[in-house]
Amino acid sequence: MNTFGRIFRVSIFGESHGEAIGVVMDGVPEGMALDAADFAADIARRAPGARGAEARGDFAAAGGGSPASAPAAFGTTPRVEADEPQILSGVVDGHTTGAPLTIIFRNANTRSGDYSDFDAMPRPGHADYVAAVKWDWANDPRGGGHFSGRITLPVVAAGVVAKKVLEGIDIQAELIEVGGCADRARWPELLAAAAAEGDSLGGVVQCTATGLPIGLGEPFFDSVESLVSHAVFSIPGVRGIEFGDGFAASRMKGSEHNDPFGADGPVKNGAGGVNGGITNGAPLVFRVAFKPTSSIAKPQRTWNFAENREDTLKIKGRHDVCFALRTPVIVEAMTAIVLADLL
Amino acid sequence: MNTFGRIFRVSIFGESHGEAIGVVMDGVPEGMALDAADFAADIARRAPGARGAEARGDFAAAGGGSPASAPAAFGTTPRVEADEPQILSGVVDGHTTGAPLTIIFRNANTRSGDYSDFDAMPRPGHADYVAAVKWDWANDPRGGGHFSGRITLPVVAAGVVAKKVLEGIDIQAELIEVGGCADRARWPELLAAAAAEGDSLGGVVQCTATGLPIGLGEPFFDSVESLVSHAVFSIPGVRGIEFGDGFAASRMKGSEHNDPFGADGPVKNGAGGVNGGITNGAPLVFRVAFKPTSSIAKPQRTWNFAENREDTLKIKGRHDVCFALRTPVIVEAMTAIVLADLL
Amino acid sequence: MNTFGRIFRVSIFGESHGEAIGVVMDGVPEGMALDAADFAADIARRAPGARGAEARGDFAAAGGGSPASAPAAFGTTPRVEADEPQILSGVVDGHTTGAPLTIIFRNANTRSGDYSDFDAMPRPGHADYVAAVKWDWANDPRGGGHFSGRITLPVVAAGVVAKKVLEGIDIQAELIEVGGCADRARWPELLAAAAAEGDSLGGVVQCTATGLPIGLGEPFFDSVESLVSHAVFSIPGVRGIEFGDGFAASRMKGSEHNDPFGADGPVKNGAGGVNGGITNGAPLVFRVAFKPTSSIAKPQRTWNFAENREDTLKIKGRHDVCFALRTPVIVEAMTAIVLADLL
Amino acid sequence: MNTFGRIFRVSIFGESHGEAIGVVMDGVPEGMALDAADFAADIARRAPGARGAEARGDFAAAGGGSPASAPAAFGTTPRVEADEPQILSGVVDGHTTGAPLTIIFRNANTRSGDYSDFDAMPRPGHADYVAAVKWDWANDPRGGGHFSGRITLPVVAAGVVAKKVLEGIDIQAELIEVGGCADRARWPELLAAAAAEGDSLGGVVQCTATGLPIGLGEPFFDSVESLVSHAVFSIPGVRGIEFGDGFAASRMKGSEHNDPFGADGPVKNGAGGVNGGITNGAPLVFRVAFKPTSSIAKPQRTWNFAENREDTLKIKGRHDVCFALRTPVIVEAMTAIVLADLL
Repeated sequence: MNTFGRIFRVSIFGESHGEAIGVVMDGVPEGMALDAADFAADIARRAPGARGAEARGDFAAAGGGSPASAPAAFGTTPRVEADEPQILSGVVDGHTTGAPLTIIFRNANTRSGDYSDFDAMPRPGHADYVAAVKWDWANDPRGGGHFSGRITLPVVAAGVVAKKVLEGIDIQAELIEVGGCADRARWPELLAAAAAEGDSLGGVVQCTATGLPIGLGEPFFDSVESLVSHAVFSIPGVRGIEFGDGFAASRMKGSEHNDPFGADGPVKNGAGGVNGGITNGAPLVFRVAFKPTSSIAKPQRTWNFAENREDTLKIKGRHDVCFALRTPVIVEAMTAIVLADLL
Repeated sequence: MNTFGRIFRVSIFGESHGEAIGVVMDGVPEGMALDAADFAADIARRAPGARGAEARGDFAAAGGGSPASAPAAFGTTPRVEADEPQILSGVVDGHTTGAPLTIIFRNANTRSGDYSDFDAMPRPGHADYVAAVKWDWANDPRGGGHFSGRITLPVVAAGVVAKKVLEGIDIQAELIEVGGCADRARWPELLAAAAAEGDSLGGVVQCTATGLPIGLGEPFFDSVESLVSHAVFSIPGVRGIEFGDGFAASRMKGSEHNDPFGADGPVKNGAGGVNGGITNGAPLVFRVAFKPTSSIAKPQRTWNFAENREDTLKIKGRHDVCFALRTPVIVEAMTAIVLADLL
Repeated sequence: MNTFGRIFRVSIFGESHGEAIGVVMDGVPEGMALDAADFAADIARRAPGARGAEARGDFAAAGGGSPASAPAAFGTTPRVEADEPQILSGVVDGHTTGAPLTIIFRNANTRSGDYSDFDAMPRPGHADYVAAVKWDWANDPRGGGHFSGRITLPVVAAGVVAKKVLEGIDIQAELIEVGGCADRARWPELLAAAAAEGDSLGGVVQCTATGLPIGLGEPFFDSVESLVSHAVFSIPGVRGIEFGDGFAASRMKGSEHNDPFGADGPVKNGAGGVNGGITNGAPLVFRVAFKPTSSIAKPQRTWNFAENREDTLKIKGRHDVCFALRTPVIVEAMTAIVLADLL
Repeated sequence: MNTFGRIFRVSIFGESHGEAIGVVMDGVPEGMALDAADFAADIARRAPGARGAEARGDFAAAGGGSPASAPAAFGTTPRVEADEPQILSGVVDGHTTGAPLTIIFRNANTRSGDYSDFDAMPRPGHADYVAAVKWDWANDPRGGGHFSGRITLPVVAAGVVAKKVLEGIDIQAELIEVGGCADRARWPELLAAAAAEGDSLGGVVQCTATGLPIGLGEPFFDSVESLVSHAVFSIPGVRGIEFGDGFAASRMKGSEHNDPFGADGPVKNGAGGVNGGITNGAPLVFRVAFKPTSSIAKPQRTWNFAENREDTLKIKGRHDVCFALRTPVIVEAMTAIVLADLL
């Protein structure tokens, strides 16, 4: 299913290289001001090329240089896309109506030729192979179909709406590691080196939501962690998620990991803001591990299913060296969608 | 909500110290042989005391000794519970009928006196605090109410049914770390030392499911990782989950992490058996980080909300030194529930 | 699925002749007073025999006479059942806790011999035939399994809880026709005549809910009528439902059927309290058509599937002459469940 | 919520006078041939004016005459709309991909001036009043917003897809009564007379689905009747639904209403193809009562909320004399959607 949420409900649709991609949102409160310009900042953060980095100052932090002349060095693909949102329903005279809110993005740049070989040689790390089996090879082979990372564009749009719903709650995600390195100063050189090798890097995003009331979440199947992880693992390329002390908690003693209370709630935040699946008033904190970009220029030895033999795959086209650079705003969007539904 | 799944659907209910806890399952196929004895092995693995450890040989692996005389040394609470399943509906003459299958467990050992102070001084790491706020202090204070780890007992029962549904699929979870240590030989001494200090330890469980068809999962919101993590984070005390290479993937290059294909599918399993949210025929592999037990004998400085001052909390009663020892069967159950629903 | 509702959610389980039947409710507000005695009045209205009729004065209205000596004459089966509710979870010290609320009823009177022939000769009007095909004859043949009218007992229990949630809203259902006759004075003779023939009668129930706020319901798929009809058609034996003017509206002109507004809302109620799927502040009014009881003593010519020939079926045991007599409280319960979920 | 179904899932969106209306379908099987032309016939049946009638020969049956010169006489509005479907996603090279299928219809003809007074004087029988209260008057007043009958256009489109899914199953709905009259020969004069008075008529639609397997539906909350009625009551203007003998069953004896079995299933169809909520192999038969069109030219005495006094409302614009004429294809669509989900 392509739907998430119970009350604030988000359904996404569209193939990367079809007519359009989009999102339908149910449960948007009526009377909220909303127009296309509200989406610009977050969409820019997800955009390929230096544009995304600049939007948050990440570019400068990542070492500066001229984004126009050398975007690939900054880790994201220079492919230019039509990222203009069109609001089809749910907004009248610049305000939400309470009816389903639909936003679409036309797909303009559809160089399907780039993707022509993936039936014969499914790309390692991609869904080409499983899609072919699951949908009997009927799935749209152009651009990864519904699996493309482009599908996160409507998610970002839905996140913008969700953030508006979450008045008084602040959600901030940022990249804290690239290629295992937490020193931002070194990221440009790591990215450049990977690009030079035709290889790719992963990263870790940390997300923090503050201003949450105590009591969000359900004790069992719909714990806050359950819902957040459900949403976050929908983002292509996620390999892990941890809350608060995370995996490190498994190596701590109870007396170290437990968060004692003070007059205003927990005095530290090893739990990441959640006890028993329910927000405890401390910031919700979690980290998400993104794998390195699967599409690499470097030749890969893999299977040619058409000719039934091992073969070398060279993926053409321009791809992100490190797509994790573009993901903080997507993680924020997913978090906002979950929290808007819980509220 | 206390329900999980779309077709094979599991709803749990019950408070630790109420009349009974149980589970209702919708979507169980008709005609499967099932009786109360089928549940014994998995329930024993979850049981407190050495019983659980012995059932899988974990006890011996953990260093031997007499479970009857010194169960606490082996990391789990010696509290004796009524773990006998009663099948109320959905089974006739030893076979499932296709109608909702209900299993309950009576609660026998309800020493509510042990829990009397937690309104005034909510236990660090527990849900006492959030439950009090969320449900206006109406929540059952005896034994943690619906939050108690005992609620995982019906989950294990549901897992037994789900495993029966998953003919030909094998799910195995095991503890691979205790207190950060992967050397099982050293676990008994670590557990004994923590018990002696009145402290507790965490652990990491690894789960592997083999025999899965290619194509389970949906490309976006209901990716396999989304559903598994949703279910697994429902288990009390989980702090993180990672699939395949997990967090380590974020530090690898694409050429290292990608799984090339051979004639029979991926030739290695960095993705943990899932591409684009959909099973690829390789084993589904993930690891779950469990925090150390929150209830520790060691005195804790925390807040006394009744008297509005800092105070020292001493938690009485016997508690698991490392409840993670009891969780592999719960992780298996959750995984089986997710996979049964996907199939 | 055996679950209804989104927020106030009801799941029923159990076979008529299994161990127990019951209901799990999610979304019950915390802190409501509730004990087993609260269920007595509504359960009595659903009970077989004159007990149900007396509870509402229907007996007297239906012509008096001695219920003990001649219950069958009053239209409902004299079979005595164990209708004592047991609250398994969700209530502590007489108040709801906010956790799932589970109520079961043990099945005591299980004369399965009465039902032994229905594999060979499925009863006309019953689900024996479809259940056999759908569940490959594994379905519990004793007593109609999950299809039995007894499954409405937990529905009535859930309705009691839902009515408590609906403070300030009054829901009243009553039988307005028996065997096509709206004159209550004539019902006893109609019932007696049908009983004497070994035949059965149907009826029409009208339900009215007052005190509803304006604005319940969703404009499209979850209109109030959609949800109420969904719930009501779950009651065994319903053949039709109509709101406000109902089928008669199709024979009226717009100028007759339209409800003009006054200062306080609609001045008449042809719409039955709903415009565009949403409550308009007028009473919600609808009528439900119940078929005659399917199990009749009168011999029926039907198919003997075991011997592959036409045969005569004589249904033994005692059955309601007109089970519609027992349904008003069930219609109320379903309505309360829908409205509690909408609120 | 604006979503229906569990596996084959339909979400509609759009306001009558917004940018576009549309539908997203999840669960569409991959590899089905589908293009825009497939929608023409069913869309024409729903279209205003004689076009709809002609498409099925209803026009001739209704008495002939020239639709171009006198469409109003044939009961439906002459308003011309842009009913061209645009497939945004889920179809590649004329075949479904298995990914969400999105179809939109641009709104072209938006004479919002016609609707300017309905805040002050909500139209009797319309949702103006409840929408204003529910959404705090933020709802789009132009054309009834999300409540408009135009929202049934994407439903018809979804129905076309659902019918393709239902290979071997035939669904036919037809109008069997107009203004209470079952004699089609008299409909043109009834429609002309109502139009002359500035008034409107209702009607009854009968729907029959043949070729269904035995066993669709669930015994309790998701009975076939529950799901069909849920979907059908989403169509604006429905006042009642009945299956098989329907309300007449409540006036029959069990020996009359029961459907005995023959070698091939029920020998008559008083139950309308459903026993115990589950299809029994006989045709699914039900009737739907539609109210007369609410928008009438005839002046109506109603409340002027702006001036807080009784006033006379004259609704301008052209409206269907009997919108029920356009509904058979909508009833078919809803039925197809339900059945596709059940299969």
